[in-house]
Amino acid sequence: MQYPKPILDLVSSYMKLPGIGKKTAIRLAFHTLKMKDKDIEEFSASLINLKKNLCRCTICGRLNEKQVCDICSDPNRDNSLICVVESDQDLIAMENMEGYNGLYHVLNGVISPMNGVGPADINLKSLFNRAKNLEIKEIILATNSSPEGEGTASFISKILKNTDIKVTRIAQGISFGSDIEYADEVTLSRAISGRFEL
Amino acid sequence: MQYPKPILDLVSSYMKLPGIGKKTAIRLAFHTLKMKDKDIEEFSASLINLKKNLCRCTICGRLNEKQVCDICSDPNRDNSLICVVESDQDLIAMENMEGYNGLYHVLNGVISPMNGVGPADINLKSLFNRAKNLEIKEIILATNSSPEGEGTASFISKILKNTDIKVTRIAQGISFGSDIEYADEVTLSRAISGRFEL
Repeated sequence: MQYPKPILDLVSSYMKLPGIGKKTAIRLAFHTLKMKDKDIEEFSASLINLKKNLCRCTICGRLNEKQVCDICSDPNRDNSLICVVESDQDLIAMENMEGYNGLYHVLNGVISPMNGVGPADINLKSLFNRAKNLEIKEIILATNSSPEGEGTASFISKILKNTDIKVTRIAQGISFGSDIEYADEVTLSRAISGRFEL
Repeated sequence: MQYPKPILDLVSSYMKLPGIGKKTAIRLAFHTLKMKDKDIEEFSASLINLKKNLCRCTICGRLNEKQVCDICSDPNRDNSLICVVESDQDLIAMENMEGYNGLYHVLNGVISPMNGVGPADINLKSLFNRAKNLEIKEIILATNSSPEGEGTASFISKILKNTDIKVTRIAQGISFGSDIEYADEVTLSRAISGRFEL
């Protein structure tokens, strides 16, 4: 015995989302049945409009609604500084910190030989093109502290070695508010090797 | 700093689903960006078509695509027997058991004074109308074993007391494969009082 087709169609769509199995998808579909018509219409429209109304900034590769994003076109930003991040989510996290006033470069991925992702598959070429601009003084590599993130950072720094640009990596160590007792060995060893004088 | 509007619109739609908070909704929205256009279109269409293509069976109240559902119109079903369930999901569970050949009645809710749901708010009136049919010999109350489910079963049995219809309740006891050691007191006491001779 199966659910009626309109429910099964929605269940199979929900199941395409990460972390949602059949039971959860059925629960979500029955919840959707109880939602207001207006909310369902908005949900449906927001799915269709998602890709239609978004593009990547031609300079930094950030997802936005314009050819050149707000940050790249902001005259108050320090355009001698580029912070390289893996994703749009990372860019938002950096911006929410409210302590950085330079530009960004969104890689939209990381080099990951295990997953068949090479340097040509992520937004790297345009970074090296931007690096030819003499105004750029420093490139901060803010990729994740994962093997792939470290690898990507090291790849970029090697390519930029013979330029005048200072290439830096964000500091690694103990998270604010966390206990040394529970820190893993790699984090602790990086916190020690990155120690600074008070 | 906020995400672009097309992403925020989808995030707020995802957040209307149960158990999905802001962080998960953002993750789902970025996953949606990576989905195939065809899958997104199907997702959007399945949302719009959900309510449009579904109605409740005029006899049993089950969600389906016709005025009278497959079960109610099946001549091979035993129409002297009605199994009363709370929801469409419960009906599917009963059908998947493959051991029942009678008809159903979907209440689409339970009487729950705490939540302001009275007998008139669920699909009860049509059950009592069906009960006037002389062909009906037995009504099985298969509401959940929750306070609301028990209350609803007892309400229905009181109303049908003075008719010739046999009103039964599904058995309660230890689940198949479960340990007596971990059973709660109410389940155990019901298993004892419902004991039968071997």
